Amino acid sequence: MYSLVTHLHAFVREIRPTVEEWRVGIEFVTALGHLTTVDHNEVILVSDTWGVSTLVDMINRSSDGATESALLGPFWKEGAPFLPLGASIAHDGTAGTSVLVSERVCDRNGAGIADAVIDVWQTDDSGFYENQYPETSGNLRGRFKADGDGRYVFRTIKPVSYPMPAHGPVGMLTLRQKRSIYRPTHLHAMISAPGYHTLVTQIFSPDDPYLDKDVTFSVVQGLIGSYETAPSHLDRDEIIQFDFTLAEGISILPDAPIG
Amino acid sequence: MYSLVTHLHAFVREIRPTVEEWRVGIEFVTALGHLTTVDHNEVILVSDTWGVSTLVDMINRSSDGATESALLGPFWKEGAPFLPLGASIAHDGTAGTSVLVSERVCDRNGAGIADAVIDVWQTDDSGFYENQYPETSGNLRGRFKADGDGRYVFRTIKPVSYPMPAHGPVGMLTLRQKRSIYRPTHLHAMISAPGYHTLVTQIFSPDDPYLDKDVTFSVVQGLIGSYETAPSHLDRDEIIQFDFTLAEGISILPDAPIG
Repeated sequence: MYSLVTHLHAFVREIRPTVEEWRVGIEFVTALGHLTTVDHNEVILVSDTWGVSTLVDMINRSSDGATESALLGPFWKEGAPFLPLGASIAHDGTAGTSVLVSERVCDRNGAGIADAVIDVWQTDDSGFYENQYPETSGNLRGRFKADGDGRYVFRTIKPVSYPMPAHGPVGMLTLRQKRSIYRPTHLHAMISAPGYHTLVTQIFSPDDPYLDKDVTFSVVQGLIGSYETAPSHLDRDEIIQFDFTLAEGISILPDAPIG
Repeated sequence: MYSLVTHLHAFVREIRPTVEEWRVGIEFVTALGHLTTVDHNEVILVSDTWGVSTLVDMINRSSDGATESALLGPFWKEGAPFLPLGASIAHDGTAGTSVLVSERVCDRNGAGIADAVIDVWQTDDSGFYENQYPETSGNLRGRFKADGDGRYVFRTIKPVSYPMPAHGPVGMLTLRQKRSIYRPTHLHAMISAPGYHTLVTQIFSPDDPYLDKDVTFSVVQGLIGSYETAPSHLDRDEIIQFDFTLAEGISILPDAPIG
């Protein structure tokens, strides 16, 4: 509380708000709460768009030499189905650029981690997660178990960039700041293995126009995957090869989504 | 926004919250909004109890040599009835210590301001304002016009200290901080006259046990009135003599209550 009030008062002393400006602030905070329901969290949205969620994530999750973390986001679901290596998380007929994702889960010395679990989820080609539709389909999410050398491979379609929910005060503020409201294309991944700190991260695409203006500030260089045109013998349009490097630690599921 | 985000991030970097602590913060802000209705504003309550309302008031209202301002609070009503000088704002039969309030409205040179309007409101002896009851009575509020020398006098009962609404997250937090949740005894006053900055203030009682721990941080030395035992020829228990000193400026009603 001492730290909070000290910084809050420093802010107020710096901007010297009028009473009317103070009232707009009161109304903004009120609207954050009023708009927050089980289906939509406007308070987390303000934390995300002001960089607080990513800052808290950085404070808690980064380990030297491990793959950098990124926000879990609101769309992860516990208990996605296990699929065999090489299978597709995209149901038959799912539109989009087809992609093969592969490579290794390894420790900080580069040794493969046998049986590591890769839990992935992403948008469809319209920018929506399956749990944003009135009827959930389970499409575009799944878990894989790496082989004895930590190798993994799965098929999917390329996710696309999408705007944050902008119907509330946070959307209005972000637009009035002339900021982009988009999240760049990203594949969510949560990697776990006994004895290793669970990694929650996102893999971005190097050709995305929103890469340098992610409204949640999640993009770091190390998380930009190299999407390449697939060799002609594969049934895919593109490939990504991405190694997930885990730090030693306690493997836990996140008890609460962040961001 | 630059100032806000800079100070907010400095706070987060300083306390290094866990994800669980971050989530408690998200839920706290959500609860502020959820509890705010037309009848109760939990967001203003957090602003009041963290000293922000008083800080904004100090930034906007203080003028050297004038009586210091204090929060308007949520109980002021526009258009209170005008009463003749000497009348009582307490309806017949109102319980409490009887008080005579008097003295002058003057400018910063000590000259009386003719016809200045003194608008006063306060709690009853149980600590409630009339508009907190299911049926409003208009009791314990009224306006007076000073005479040609700026002199005023009215009768009332002594207000009492009372706890802030503590049923929500702000009350719980304040109690867990081991802070008092009380506001010390105070008489609200708004003084206006053409050509002078409207003064919104509160007069405190020197014998109040919560004077040094007002949960809204409103008490300053200059606003502690001298309640004295009334001389025997008066029909009162106590008297207060308080001069209101106004600064030159534009006389306006506050467009929005603060605190």
